[in-house]
Amino acid sequence: MSSEPLGVALVGCGTVGTGVAKLLLEKGDRLAQRAGRSLVLRKVVVRDPAKVRGADVPRELVTTDLAAVHDPAVHVVAELIGGTTTARKVVLDALAAGKHVVTANKALLAEHGPELFEAARKVERTICFEAAVAGGVPIIRALAESLAANQVTALQGILNGTSNFILTSMAEQGTSYAAALAEAQRLGYAEADPTLDVDGSDAAHKLAVLAQIAFGVTAKPHEIEKIGIDTIDAMDIRFADELGYTIKLLAEAWADNGRVALHVAPVLLRHTDMLAQVRGAFNAVQVVGDVVGETLYQGPGAGMMPTASSVVADLIDLAVGRAQRTFAAAKLWSGQSRGFVIEPSETVRSRFYLRLLVLDRPGVLADVCRILADHAISISSVIQHEALEGRAEQTVPLVIMTHYSETGKFRAAVGAIGKVANVAAPAVFYSVDD
Amino acid sequence: MSSEPLGVALVGCGTVGTGVAKLLLEKGDRLAQRAGRSLVLRKVVVRDPAKVRGADVPRELVTTDLAAVHDPAVHVVAELIGGTTTARKVVLDALAAGKHVVTANKALLAEHGPELFEAARKVERTICFEAAVAGGVPIIRALAESLAANQVTALQGILNGTSNFILTSMAEQGTSYAAALAEAQRLGYAEADPTLDVDGSDAAHKLAVLAQIAFGVTAKPHEIEKIGIDTIDAMDIRFADELGYTIKLLAEAWADNGRVALHVAPVLLRHTDMLAQVRGAFNAVQVVGDVVGETLYQGPGAGMMPTASSVVADLIDLAVGRAQRTFAAAKLWSGQSRGFVIEPSETVRSRFYLRLLVLDRPGVLADVCRILADHAISISSVIQHEALEGRAEQTVPLVIMTHYSETGKFRAAVGAIGKVANVAAPAVFYSVDD
Repeated sequence: MSSEPLGVALVGCGTVGTGVAKLLLEKGDRLAQRAGRSLVLRKVVVRDPAKVRGADVPRELVTTDLAAVHDPAVHVVAELIGGTTTARKVVLDALAAGKHVVTANKALLAEHGPELFEAARKVERTICFEAAVAGGVPIIRALAESLAANQVTALQGILNGTSNFILTSMAEQGTSYAAALAEAQRLGYAEADPTLDVDGSDAAHKLAVLAQIAFGVTAKPHEIEKIGIDTIDAMDIRFADELGYTIKLLAEAWADNGRVALHVAPVLLRHTDMLAQVRGAFNAVQVVGDVVGETLYQGPGAGMMPTASSVVADLIDLAVGRAQRTFAAAKLWSGQSRGFVIEPSETVRSRFYLRLLVLDRPGVLADVCRILADHAISISSVIQHEALEGRAEQTVPLVIMTHYSETGKFRAAVGAIGKVANVAAPAVFYSVDD
Repeated sequence: MSSEPLGVALVGCGTVGTGVAKLLLEKGDRLAQRAGRSLVLRKVVVRDPAKVRGADVPRELVTTDLAAVHDPAVHVVAELIGGTTTARKVVLDALAAGKHVVTANKALLAEHGPELFEAARKVERTICFEAAVAGGVPIIRALAESLAANQVTALQGILNGTSNFILTSMAEQGTSYAAALAEAQRLGYAEADPTLDVDGSDAAHKLAVLAQIAFGVTAKPHEIEKIGIDTIDAMDIRFADELGYTIKLLAEAWADNGRVALHVAPVLLRHTDMLAQVRGAFNAVQVVGDVVGETLYQGPGAGMMPTASSVVADLIDLAVGRAQRTFAAAKLWSGQSRGFVIEPSETVRSRFYLRLLVLDRPGVLADVCRILADHAISISSVIQHEALEGRAEQTVPLVIMTHYSETGKFRAAVGAIGKVANVAAPAVFYSVDD
């Protein structure tokens, strides 16, 4: 093991960067003990030096010059600026200068993984990214190392803390989506523009990264079907609850016979399911391996110190020399196939929760049931609720739980149901995980 | 990375050994892809060759001769026989012959960790032991690598699947301890002699191993206070449930100011606590790190393939060269202190559940309350239950929930309560985790 200090440059010093700087500056003895050598902060590259606060970064380390990371005393560049344009340049430039890279940037990996990893392999440098998925939850190491004897067969993750916070508030306080979002923004769990969190994009980026490790497939984020929580209605959370289910936004991968379906969507989980218990801004990933069976990993999904914990774990792995071995062995984004192809979710079999608003007139239930029967979908239970206060007169919610059917067939049935005369609003439907 | 195959010898081919042999023989291509080189089964050492079944081990690999592992084509010896006497010799002999060692043997590590790890360091070989704690749950890597930036401040684990299976049965089916144990034995979750599982010894061994990684303390198993589930009464599970709590056998480490308290005991957890949701033979560990906060790891705690998954993950780590780096950096059982000393649980502050059987006569509640007050212990709630059917006439259960107090003070109060005239049976008390 080298006893030379490992020199670290941070590019970006926002929330996560500040956390990493704090650890390097304040916990130096601990990190040196864990790594067998010192981890030394050499440079902090920022756009506006006046904004470096929160960590007592010595002024002489702060610079606006990206080329400062070329300093021979810098061995690792931590890219912590986010986005995909400048971040891509920063990473390629660092690799070209012979530096290892640590990043927390899932969008960058999801969009440019093949290019960046190829560049790293060419110069025999390593890219680490534990912090890119699920913040403080060590899911990257779990998939790449701990479960290395397994082929993952299923993966279900609560990967977006903002969405989970909002769903938890709606379920526990009975608030509307708008009120829960406003509360999340007030408490700092949601951005002023929360679009990428609540429309499922962020979770899709993370799922693309996990799918690369677990299945060797390179899924562009736009290839991952996604439904966010931004259209969720409080009544569906309540009806699901009455049936014994909690609604969670899940990023899911289902592998079968060489095909893997990837999607992000709200899903009904039994109250007793471990993922249903994951509250607030926490993240969790349930992984089924063909050898080990079902395992689960949970922790804080974001925030300054949880994310910094993962970034610094990567720095320690680089200092110890583990990360280089893992990187070389894993051959991520190399096009090396494990024989999986991405397929749409159409053929995934699932139970479904279907909620309609129907006019309270004779025959509508018969029409809906007939359409489901025509699509070979069996009904598990039906509840016609009382008319809701404050909703259009005469419409009543009709909740149907189905037995297993193929997603594609179920969607076709929903399309047909939308044309029934007395169905008053677009159907709402979610998968049910039993 | 070496492209030479990694030669593996198994010593012991019972349940876990059979699982490891299966993976090596049947999933060779997968493992070679993950490790960047082949993993080849070279020898299987057993006492009785006729008993090697379940995996199609070629006969010529099977031997009763322990010295067979000295074969130069063997690079790793997997010790899978259990126990501490022969197992110790097997490991020392393998190391002396220049082999790396993988073991699933928590008792061996807890009893002989310092000697074995010193021997490994002398010959620059590595000992891996992911499978020794919590079967398929990758808690060793989590503590040693993923959380390397953290000092662990608290750790709570469901580490004995047999106990958890019994407690789950008792809680969900309302059965007695004896009936639940018999069911566990019938289903293969408990041994014919379940003593080490149900008296907390097995969990204490595992806690000793985790405490070495998390705190650098070397706790002999007998230094870990333990209370098993073998004395648990169905009525306490019911009363706890009525109060909103689930009873789980937890292995706990609480660190504070350079001191760490280690113990195994039944604990009351709120129904909504993640650990309370862990059912049947599953294991789970909740770890609080001072940087990341609260994280949780869950999975199957035992069984052929889950444990084999962890053993083979270690073999892959050795093949990749990661394990050697980790071993050198972690300096486990080297006496290298992180400044923690083991202290008894006397000073740990907790809430308590106290259940007495008292004769239904005037004054007994007053006496008990007076004693608690004299020990400066505040009462949070009191429920005097109706007399129980089938119990001695005139005794009624009295359940008291306290506010926080030091464990030592609470135990002193319980001692005094035991001398009160109308208290009819030894007091039962458990910590309450809020």
